[in-house]
Amino acid sequence: MTYDPDNIFAKILRGEIPSNKVYEDDDTFAFMDIMPRADGHLLVIPKTPCRNVLDASPEQLAAVMSTVQKMAQTVLRAFSADGVTIQQFNEAAGGQEVFHLHFHVLPRHDGVSLRAPGQMGDFDVIAGHADQIRSAL
Amino acid sequence: MTYDPDNIFAKILRGEIPSNKVYEDDDTFAFMDIMPRADGHLLVIPKTPCRNVLDASPEQLAAVMSTVQKMAQTVLRAFSADGVTIQQFNEAAGGQEVFHLHFHVLPRHDGVSLRAPGQMGDFDVIAGHADQIRSAL
Repeated sequence: MTYDPDNIFAKILRGEIPSNKVYEDDDTFAFMDIMPRADGHLLVIPKTPCRNVLDASPEQLAAVMSTVQKMAQTVLRAFSADGVTIQQFNEAAGGQEVFHLHFHVLPRHDGVSLRAPGQMGDFDVIAGHADQIRSAL
Repeated sequence: MTYDPDNIFAKILRGEIPSNKVYEDDDTFAFMDIMPRADGHLLVIPKTPCRNVLDASPEQLAAVMSTVQKMAQTVLRAFSADGVTIQQFNEAAGGQEVFHLHFHVLPRHDGVSLRAPGQMGDFDVIAGHADQIRSAL
């Protein structure tokens, strides 16, 4: 499987499509999921191309996991969350829809189930959650 | 949150409880989930103590992700899978049941949903899947 440089996350990284960024460093980029399954649902991606975990380099995996950890710790504070669920999908059968490596970081609260996938979130609500995350960094 | 050295994965690492090991290196250990949500469902853990992603060291995260990648690539071959789903749960609200860092690696096939969680698998079937994984390493 080859990397398609026109996938939507590559376009976000190039600034061709807007995103609600919450964190960025030399190697990684974190932004809000537009179909949040929990309040504060965000994505962490490497800035360099790879399709998913199957073809990622050790450097990409280490950098992305470091940011996943940082964002998990941050959403815990930002939302007074009780836990965090991390999901990562590889190829369509594995649940992947955008073919640029990404990790889902989902703040969780006791007794609150994840919302069904595929439902577009409210733009202003997501922007508010992004503010909460940036403030907690 | 502190690490409980009597969690079941710590006991597996000390050999106090049996497990169906499929891979081991200096830093990590991979074994079959006894409640598989897909054929070949396995877990990857660090050999050193940490509760989850929230308190893991960079070294633990990098080592575990390296083995997660290796096992994802391996189950793809072992089961002619079409994809791989990776899940990682932090604290009870996040879905965590055993409080030693672990990543779920789930081989996926087109059109086959994950089984419901919490159902004990057949011991011999799981042992057969473990053989398939070890043979594909």
